[in-house]
Amino acid sequence: MADTGWPGCSKSLKGVILDMCGVLYESGEGDGVAIPGSVEAVKKLKASDLQLRFCTNETQATREKFVAKLQRLGFDISVSEVFSPAPAAVAVLKERALRPHLLVYDGLLPEFDSVDKTNPNCVVIGDAAEQFSYQNLNKAFSVLIGLDNPMLFSLGQGRYYKETDGLKLDVGVYMKALEYACDLKAEVVGKPSPTFFQSVLNDMGLQPHEALMIGDDLVNDVGGAQHCGMKGVQVRTGKYRPTDERHSTVMADGTVDNLAQAVDMILNQRH
Amino acid sequence: MADTGWPGCSKSLKGVILDMCGVLYESGEGDGVAIPGSVEAVKKLKASDLQLRFCTNETQATREKFVAKLQRLGFDISVSEVFSPAPAAVAVLKERALRPHLLVYDGLLPEFDSVDKTNPNCVVIGDAAEQFSYQNLNKAFSVLIGLDNPMLFSLGQGRYYKETDGLKLDVGVYMKALEYACDLKAEVVGKPSPTFFQSVLNDMGLQPHEALMIGDDLVNDVGGAQHCGMKGVQVRTGKYRPTDERHSTVMADGTVDNLAQAVDMILNQRH
Repeated sequence: MADTGWPGCSKSLKGVILDMCGVLYESGEGDGVAIPGSVEAVKKLKASDLQLRFCTNETQATREKFVAKLQRLGFDISVSEVFSPAPAAVAVLKERALRPHLLVYDGLLPEFDSVDKTNPNCVVIGDAAEQFSYQNLNKAFSVLIGLDNPMLFSLGQGRYYKETDGLKLDVGVYMKALEYACDLKAEVVGKPSPTFFQSVLNDMGLQPHEALMIGDDLVNDVGGAQHCGMKGVQVRTGKYRPTDERHSTVMADGTVDNLAQAVDMILNQRH
Repeated sequence: MADTGWPGCSKSLKGVILDMCGVLYESGEGDGVAIPGSVEAVKKLKASDLQLRFCTNETQATREKFVAKLQRLGFDISVSEVFSPAPAAVAVLKERALRPHLLVYDGLLPEFDSVDKTNPNCVVIGDAAEQFSYQNLNKAFSVLIGLDNPMLFSLGQGRYYKETDGLKLDVGVYMKALEYACDLKAEVVGKPSPTFFQSVLNDMGLQPHEALMIGDDLVNDVGGAQHCGMKGVQVRTGKYRPTDERHSTVMADGTVDNLAQAVDMILNQRH
């Protein structure tokens, strides 16, 4: 049974990567709310001999503001432990000398302060939420359709996420919209991009088989990690839906009620 | 050469179907503007022995208001000659006893007056333009994701259209967005649905090989008509782009500068 243990939780395990929204906390009004047991679960992992990193597709705030929110919710987290798409995108843009038109949440803009945005030759979209207006999407479309070689970067490819007042459309939905409008394929920066997961593994100095990803998004967290050779476990919090457990293409290495249960199982198996 | 005549313009031709926006007129502020020569071209067709119908994916106004606009632009057109997606969708909804949540332009709502919209069990989207807000798209998504058997009807599947102030995203883009969000396939009502083209042929009492479609949209007008066995000619007005003439999957039976040229060629070949 899925709940009785996972092959990845053997003694060979050296690091754990945690998704944040839907695993540590549920988003919503204000800071959202910590998921019961998650603050303690992070503490236990930090007290263990396992390495720990956080990996999020959060693109509504800078890493600094995002981490400050998590700290207010009681989590022991620092910016250097958190991997998010915007800094990864900035690295790509600079490497390729690209000047983006940005369709992102206002709160994310400071992440792109160091990037030249004049006379754009590509488009970067994030989870812009309310800023995904017809006007703004049309503007991004106009930039793309006017380029000889249109390039679209998407900060994640999630379908939806859960806020306290219900499910909300995520950036992937608008990525698909622009892909269809311009007849192109976007480049995903963030989960489930293998490049993104690999950068986290590199930071820990681990091989994929030594790491376990825990997330609420079956395709992007669990499937993405498995695609890189890691184990992937899904929690039944956040955007989890019961149909995930009979998904046609992705099967988690384990499914648990929440992060607290996952961490207890991991640590119990090691002792 | 494409401009020297088309196989479909032989004596066997008995009817012509005209797309409207981008063929008769360019949309934009107010009523938009008639494309030079189009008013006279429609007159010439009406004076000929060819049958004539109009086929539009226009979903921002009722057929009555839409036809009134065309009349103000100088066109000799009546409502009974015009085929549009909303009445076709109403027929489908009633036939299957479906109750829609509507994400359409306000001006189209009267077309759905006779349809029960309480406790919706499907979603219908049209070219809602500015009403494609994040909130409204999220609402449509919430309805779909809450259904055991989510059904999405899209009034057309266009990528974009041209207004006097530039290209604008069309309903197909939002159809793709919701398809991805809900992991479903929408049912297209309107062009290029074969059912829709067939209803126009039925009304004329013609076989597909006896009819010619003229449009500015290579995939939905020309490709859709060809898929039904009709000939399809593209005009270099409206949303036409030069790359259409080297499209990977659709090749028009002819390409002409505008409707006036198309009609002159058709009528000259018949005399």
